[in-house]
Formats: sequence, structure tokens, C-alpha cells
Amino acid sequence: MTITFYELTGANDALCFSPNTWRTRMALEHKGLPYETEPCRFVEKEKIAFSGQKRVPVIRDGDRSVHDSWAIACYLEDTYPDRPSLFGCDTGRAVTHFFNSYMNTVVHPALVRLILTDIHTNLHEMDQAYFRESREERFGKTLEEVSADREGNLAAVRRALVPLDDTLSQQDWFGGDGPAYADYLVFGAFQWTRAVSTAKLAEPGSPLAAWNERTLDLFGGVGRSLPAVAG
Amino acid sequence: MTITFYELTGANDALCFSPNTWRTRMALEHKGLPYETEPCRFVEKEKIAFSGQKRVPVIRDGDRSVHDSWAIACYLEDTYPDRPSLFGCDTGRAVTHFFNSYMNTVVHPALVRLILTDIHTNLHEMDQAYFRESREERFGKTLEEVSADREGNLAAVRRALVPLDDTLSQQDWFGGDGPAYADYLVFGAFQWTRAVSTAKLAEPGSPLAAWNERTLDLFGGVGRSLPAVAG
Repeated sequence: MTITFYELTGANDALCFSPNTWRTRMALEHKGLPYETEPCRFVEKEKIAFSGQKRVPVIRDGDRSVHDSWAIACYLEDTYPDRPSLFGCDTGRAVTHFFNSYMNTVVHPALVRLILTDIHTNLHEMDQAYFRESREERFGKTLEEVSADREGNLAAVRRALVPLDDTLSQQDWFGGDGPAYADYLVFGAFQWTRAVSTAKLAEPGSPLAAWNERTLDLFGGVGRSLPAVAG
Repeated sequence: MTITFYELTGANDALCFSPNTWRTRMALEHKGLPYETEPCRFVEKEKIAFSGQKRVPVIRDGDRSVHDSWAIACYLEDTYPDRPSLFGCDTGRAVTHFFNSYMNTVVHPALVRLILTDIHTNLHEMDQAYFRESREERFGKTLEEVSADREGNLAAVRRALVPLDDTLSQQDWFGGDGPAYADYLVFGAFQWTRAVSTAKLAEPGSPLAAWNERTLDLFGGVGRSLPAVAG
């Protein structure tokens, strides 16, 4: 049975910029499960109304629907235990949860400031007004004001990446000898940036920069199929 | 065979204030291995000269010696695989490594600023001059200058604990249903503070505060046997 994967897209259907849907896409690839992608914009929430809420990622697997990237990863792990594991074991799952918290509470809040105007530029025009209004209300500033200090914002992101870089100075993947869901949690932030911005998150030459190249090559280069912004 | 565990102590032998040796003590307890503690001060480095370096924790297990808290945890896991696991599986070990990096590169650097003068106060007098000189050289300031902004320093520590607190809002232990080495990595920072300071790292009522109480009760209350500073 083919899984339907609801993916947030920008100005065109190839412009998949959501960090959280990248987590889900990589998890589906890791499990080797067949899926078809259903593009979806911010203002097309009726497409996922069946899920009972308004945010992607959502998957539909037969008569089941699951939303929230962490819940989807756990669903895939539990429903397809004979496929390659995302977590390794129950302790691995629990400990990976801290990556999830770290990305959500530290890295993404720093990163969104860096790329906020870039995101807006790359949205489908049907989404731009919604995005500007909802984000300017959240920040209490214009998008341009939030992203104005590009050097300061990049420095803040780089500080948030220090413990990730430190880990990769001692092992090739966050999952150890090969990639695991922890890698896809971090990769989501890198794809978010790749989709819309010329910013280089990882210091050139750093362990994270090398890891990002390796991760882009996984699963036939599915990550690399996202066009990078020229710059 | 009883393992010898070299432990950094302060003004008295019960004052075990090193976060890294607490990681090792909890790992030994988790594995249920018999060990005897050999107290050691900063200036008594000849006691661990056999390990080929100058920092605790060090363990001696028969004719083997191992130093560095992470290397010791891996040694115990690999040497005693039939005892309760610290990591659950190889992926769990790799992902736990990020906790190690996070504590070492983010939480400890923030925390040491908060408790630097408190540590000095609680050292054995034979260590105080060494500690002041080496730390003042490292910071380029007096101990008192580093710790002067107590409110600001506490706020920085609390920010560093946000992703940890977020994780525990969804599970009881960093290891999931029960404690694992990830828990002991975080616990080390709490014991470092408990030994020397009246500062409350976790917001009262937070998931982290409740977790700390549970962790103090593990293994017959070995963590609680460290006297807390009255305050």
C-alpha cells in the first residue's frame, strides 16, 4: 500500500522548504516505504482537514492518518518494525527525543530569524500575505526587521550548532556508523535553509559541513534533488 | 573483582563535586558493579599517574585502567554486556553522545560561571590556590568577577536547560521509561551544583525539578548521600 505524504511547498512543487516535512520524507526513505507526495500550501489547509488539524507533515497510510513529525516517526517505527530502524531500540528512541527538543527549542528559533525574509520570497504567491501577517504578529516586528542583522543571526545559529559539530568530530553520523532519525532531525534544518537561502549554516571544512554533503547523497540523493539557491 | 574509582573530592571526602565523576559513579551503580572509591584532590595527581594523564574520573579494573567519563561508560558497557545497559543499543550509544557534547559545550560552560566562587569555597585548602590560579588564567578574570552577575548567570543556565526540560515534559527519564547514561550526563551537572551551591538549577515545579528528585533516589539514594548546601 502506498503512503500519501502531505508536503509543504513554495513557489513551485519542487520547493519543499519545511524542516519538519523533511524529517518525515527522510524517515519514509530510511524505511524504504513507497509513498506519493501531495503538495500543499499554507492556505490549502482543507487538503489535510481529514487529519483533524492544520499543520503538515501528515501521512495517510491506508485508513490511518498521522500528523506531527515525531508521531509519524514513531508510527513508522512501530508499524514497520522489520524495516531499517530509525531509533535502534527503545532507549535510542527516548534519547533521540532530546534531538527533537533541541532542534525545536534552540536551533529552529535561531534559524528562522536568519532566513525569514528568504522564506517569504520563496513562497507561492497564494501564501505570502498569510505568512507575513502570521509571522509579523508572532515576532511583533516586520519580517525585514527580524532578518536585518544577518551576521548576528548567522552567529547565533552557528553557536546553536556547536554541540552538533562537537558530536560529529567523533563519529560520522548522529546515529553512529550510519544515519538514524537523529540525523534527519538535524537535516531538516539544513534543507529548510538550502531551499530558500544562500546562507551556509555549517562552517566550511567543519564536521557538520562534511556530514551535510553525505546526508544529501542518501537514498539516491533525495535531499540533493531539492534545488539549492544560487549564491 | 572490585573496581577502584578515583573520585575528586573537596574540603572533605564526602564532598564529591565533580560532574564528570558523578557520571562514572552513576554508571557503576547502574551496572551494579562493586567498586571502592579513592578520594583524590586536584594537587594529588600522582595518585592517578598510572593512567598516563592528570584528570579524574579514572577507574582501575584488574590490570586495566580507563580515564575520561565517556570512555569509561563505553568500557563498562562493552566489558559487562550482561549487566543493565547504559545505552540500549549502538544507535542509543551514538545518540547519547550528543548529550555528552551538549553538557560539555553548552551546559557546563554556563554553569561554571554561576558556581565558580562556590566551588572555590568548598575545596580542600590544599587545592584552593591551584584552582584560583588555573581558573583565573582560563577566564582572564578573578573568580569573583566571573560569578558576580548571579542573576544573569542563572538565567543563562536556565536557557541552556530549556531543551532538556522540554524533553522531560514528554517522558519521565532521558532514557525513556527508566534511567540510562543520558540521565547521568545531566545529573552530573545537578550534583556539581548540589555539592557547592544554593542555586536551584531547575525551575521549581518543572519537569527537570521532579526528575532531579527521582534521580537522587536511584540506587539507594547514592546521589542524595551527597550533602546539599544549606540555603
